[in-house]
Amino acid sequence: MSPTTAQGTLVLIGGREQKDGERVILTEVARRAGPGTLVVATLASEEPDCQWRRYAKAFTELGVRRVEHLAIADREEALSPDITQIFDGATAVFFTGGDQLKIVAKLGGTSLLARMRELFEGGGLLAGTSAGAASMGEVMLVAQGPRENSHKVEGAFYMTRGLGLVSDLIIDQHFAQRARIHRLLGAVGENPGVLGIGIDEDTAVIVRPQESFQVIGSGAVYVVDGSGVTHTNVSETASRDTLRLFDVKLHVLDGHSGFDLNARRPFRDRASHSSDT
Amino acid sequence: MSPTTAQGTLVLIGGREQKDGERVILTEVARRAGPGTLVVATLASEEPDCQWRRYAKAFTELGVRRVEHLAIADREEALSPDITQIFDGATAVFFTGGDQLKIVAKLGGTSLLARMRELFEGGGLLAGTSAGAASMGEVMLVAQGPRENSHKVEGAFYMTRGLGLVSDLIIDQHFAQRARIHRLLGAVGENPGVLGIGIDEDTAVIVRPQESFQVIGSGAVYVVDGSGVTHTNVSETASRDTLRLFDVKLHVLDGHSGFDLNARRPFRDRASHSSDT
Repeated sequence: MSPTTAQGTLVLIGGREQKDGERVILTEVARRAGPGTLVVATLASEEPDCQWRRYAKAFTELGVRRVEHLAIADREEALSPDITQIFDGATAVFFTGGDQLKIVAKLGGTSLLARMRELFEGGGLLAGTSAGAASMGEVMLVAQGPRENSHKVEGAFYMTRGLGLVSDLIIDQHFAQRARIHRLLGAVGENPGVLGIGIDEDTAVIVRPQESFQVIGSGAVYVVDGSGVTHTNVSETASRDTLRLFDVKLHVLDGHSGFDLNARRPFRDRASHSSDT
Repeated sequence: MSPTTAQGTLVLIGGREQKDGERVILTEVARRAGPGTLVVATLASEEPDCQWRRYAKAFTELGVRRVEHLAIADREEALSPDITQIFDGATAVFFTGGDQLKIVAKLGGTSLLARMRELFEGGGLLAGTSAGAASMGEVMLVAQGPRENSHKVEGAFYMTRGLGLVSDLIIDQHFAQRARIHRLLGAVGENPGVLGIGIDEDTAVIVRPQESFQVIGSGAVYVVDGSGVTHTNVSETASRDTLRLFDVKLHVLDGHSGFDLNARRPFRDRASHSSDT
């Protein structure tokens, strides 16, 4: 990353990105991490050491010179004053998957999170896969209701505060694979001002906050724009009712396209994502 | 049904409608069948006798006086000249679930289908659940690709000709339950002139062709309107590419809403579906 960049970049991955072979997404993360340390944060995982070994191997193979492990078992560890030192010399953080609630419960309100935000605002890279991606929004979707009830409005209330590293976006992951259009629609119905972003597995968005994002990887990204919604029952009915939502705009993006966050318009084949570093 | 009705009504059910208890949808079918014979067509099923017994019991309990079983093992039986007699005195046909390809392979181009269309055009009721609903469009979606690949354009090509009883609609069923937004989007991308209708389980649309439909049941109905699509890669790329589709309009409807097919607009709480018989 150029040190003159006013703000950093986010790479939000839908989960299950390729770890061998072509691995387009991890290659892009490694390239953008640049010459500094890449910190692998396993806060969401039940098996942090296993995750750490897999990603350390992959990033090392992809040319990252220094990879460090941020392993935090509980909030007490997150509050330890020494722990922020791991970010000295760091240019990038990569959050692994697991449970996004664990990330936020450990990091929320800590000086460790403040240090991470500082790194990001100084032009650093924050990347996350699956839960690691979902945790970065101001609000996040934390649990899927039983699939039989996924059309119920109550699904929309499985939301809680995220890390707030990117505003006005709700990120959902494993999108096509776990039938999540309904819960994302419910979340957008709740607040049509936010943009819903559903990311398939092995697919990522590279976000320049307040500007645009570009899609990479093998799957699709679904953009749910509720700004034109003319009617919904989200606020007026009991939470067990079925969702009603008129006039949502939906875009399906592949790796040859992206989205202008200010104009709220999709675009094709812009080269900006590979020329800005 | 009033004998002066210019055309019949369709009831398209997303599958797994309640067969005991409140059973809103089957009650509506029974009511609309009126005093004539209701023919239960088990053409899609591997277990036609079992299906027949379940529905005969339910419809009899719901007040239908005469219920007949249209069981057709193969096309030879469908071509038998005597078989059309089952429709003498019939006011309604109910297609059970199973495999929609079986329905079309047995019925396509037969005088039995012509007789059924006659009944419908004379004001009769055609109802179908799951495969029975999907078979009624001009084109139908016949098989889901592996879920891992459901964002691929190739999914859009799992289409074949249906019975053509309702034009300009593509019907998909078990919608929320089987993660089918992607294949429906692919189908609409292929021909943005058709309207995609995704129906959840235990949910139905009551269609007055070329006019409107009303939603009943416990789930949601997703309307995918591609008429405003500004760009897609469906026709320009190899079939293994990921779908790209900009500016789809999406509506989520519950049982207190419906859709005007001419204006292509959703509406709330119109009483037309219960006052037109």
